[in-house]
Amino acid sequence: VLVDLLLVGFGHVGRRFARLLEERRAALARTEALEPRVVGVATRRHGAALAPAGLDLKEALARVEAGRRLEDLHDETTGPAPMSGLDLIHRCAQGRGGEAPWVVVETTWLDVQTGGPAVAHVRAALASGAHVVTANKGPVAVAYRELRALAEARDRAFLFEGAVMDGVPVFNLVRETLPGVEIRGFRGVINATTNYILTALEEGQPFERALADMQAAGIAEADPSLDLDGWDAAAKTAALANVWLDADLTPARIARAGIAPATAAEARAALAGGERLRLVARAARRGPTVEAEVALIRLPADDLLAGLRGLANALVIETDLLGEVAIVQMGGGLTQTAYALLSDLVAVTRRLRAPGRAPRGQSP
Amino acid sequence: VLVDLLLVGFGHVGRRFARLLEERRAALARTEALEPRVVGVATRRHGAALAPAGLDLKEALARVEAGRRLEDLHDETTGPAPMSGLDLIHRCAQGRGGEAPWVVVETTWLDVQTGGPAVAHVRAALASGAHVVTANKGPVAVAYRELRALAEARDRAFLFEGAVMDGVPVFNLVRETLPGVEIRGFRGVINATTNYILTALEEGQPFERALADMQAAGIAEADPSLDLDGWDAAAKTAALANVWLDADLTPARIARAGIAPATAAEARAALAGGERLRLVARAARRGPTVEAEVALIRLPADDLLAGLRGLANALVIETDLLGEVAIVQMGGGLTQTAYALLSDLVAVTRRLRAPGRAPRGQSP
Repeated sequence: VLVDLLLVGFGHVGRRFARLLEERRAALARTEALEPRVVGVATRRHGAALAPAGLDLKEALARVEAGRRLEDLHDETTGPAPMSGLDLIHRCAQGRGGEAPWVVVETTWLDVQTGGPAVAHVRAALASGAHVVTANKGPVAVAYRELRALAEARDRAFLFEGAVMDGVPVFNLVRETLPGVEIRGFRGVINATTNYILTALEEGQPFERALADMQAAGIAEADPSLDLDGWDAAAKTAALANVWLDADLTPARIARAGIAPATAAEARAALAGGERLRLVARAARRGPTVEAEVALIRLPADDLLAGLRGLANALVIETDLLGEVAIVQMGGGLTQTAYALLSDLVAVTRRLRAPGRAPRGQSP
Repeated sequence: VLVDLLLVGFGHVGRRFARLLEERRAALARTEALEPRVVGVATRRHGAALAPAGLDLKEALARVEAGRRLEDLHDETTGPAPMSGLDLIHRCAQGRGGEAPWVVVETTWLDVQTGGPAVAHVRAALASGAHVVTANKGPVAVAYRELRALAEARDRAFLFEGAVMDGVPVFNLVRETLPGVEIRGFRGVINATTNYILTALEEGQPFERALADMQAAGIAEADPSLDLDGWDAAAKTAALANVWLDADLTPARIARAGIAPATAAEARAALAGGERLRLVARAARRGPTVEAEVALIRLPADDLLAGLRGLANALVIETDLLGEVAIVQMGGGLTQTAYALLSDLVAVTRRLRAPGRAPRGQSP
């Protein structure tokens, strides 16, 4: 299957995905009969290019990493170079005949409260007939119902494995391997920065140093308040609850807790009492509604979530048929997030071969 | 998709599967467009019946549970009632036109060293053109290469999610959600009986009582030596290594450890030293070979496997792209094992809709 890709966003995650595509090209062809071809790239600061016959991806990587622009790679027979990610999507759609499948790979920066600009990219892509895979939690956290309905109406995939726990299968786990299972709720530790800091505080390390470690590793943002104030965990909680529990939540509507230097005393007191302080995301069906929150909780030492140290994350899924099932990520990073996009791309490809199959978007 | 099923084996697992099929019939039709129809049942002690137009499953359940035989449900226009599971498979194959897909659901009793009689059932079913789903670890533990080759040659599925960790996705997790990921090794606690006993020993409970608990719950066998001597864990290790690491192992070729009443002192000594004694199954690629063993190991208390208490099981999978990923089963039982068969049946159905898709059998 020849699949055309538009890379909307070409930062660390987008570029790692581009390299991963090349590294795994032979394996994808062999095991999935997938031949991806990048036909467009849009960046935040280095311009954009559309090249329907295929774009020189190595050259695009080299240019952006040397601080140069992409316009020289643009195919001018399609018109002038696109001005933005949205422009690239629209221009690509106009030039296509509707026959070959195309996938927008969305990895732009994210405003966690509005979901922008990712939501606009996803909306435009689906409306234009593209499938969408994104590493952004924004679209599924703030506009899932709308985007799912759009994907269903256009019979396109809208996948977002990277939104939670990077490339460790979470959404794909439930959709692909737990058919017919009803999810009643979940609880998890799903923000790596805060868990790393909590572990460090338990060991008596200073808050600021643990935070600096995470920033140096590129895991916490330069402005770390999204992690520390629980916004990241709340966005992931909304995403999971929207998809699994058919909720209609946004991050702002989820009760939030976070951590601060003063949390150190609490973490050490928990440890002294044989417990562990963890930032826990949880949600459950309660009759017709879904209750969801991010809370700082003391857990018994033998709880699976209490045992998570450092960057480890985990989700415990409560199901009707299987009781509790947990999936654990021992460590994350750029490659894992890029892999999430790749695994979603493979899911799209498999779906293209099985058009009658029920799951559109991420509907249960 | 109308799919005909033969239930070969109709003990606790087979009957729970039959009930689960009925309970989830509406959901399977809605989400997977799957319409399963049971056309034959073979039991160990209550005879067998073949009814190509569909067999009265409720009546079959009621008869067997009342200690009665199945022959009255047999359709005599197909000839006399089958004498065995193998006979049922052959007789069903002879009567079929080759158009509609059929699936043999294999849940017979198991000799863990020979894999019998399950291996013979799987071989006959694949050779006859049926897809196979089984809850037995025998076939994949003792004859995987042969059966995989047979499945590939006939373009049929051979699935066995229930062989390890019941219905918690293990094989399906890797095949469906980790495309392109290379597995380098794994380690896990994958025998519930021994883990329950080890936890009890740590708490100072007597070995015999913990074992009796497991027998009363139907989790340990009446002859518990398969669990206690590490045979069950070794069979699961062989199954995982054969599928994930392309090994060609059998349970007998895996170094084994087990537990006994004398293990109590060791378990308590580990606990006193801040560690935990666990029966760990592990395997890894070492150059051209695969090293695999079941060993009694002291683990640091903060190891994920050390934290498993009671019936909990877990597998930590070492991958190239995602680092370590773990899947955890908090508790198991009959429904979980029956669900494994159902999830495999859905995987077969999805494959029927996407015939070009690469993974035949469980090949990577």
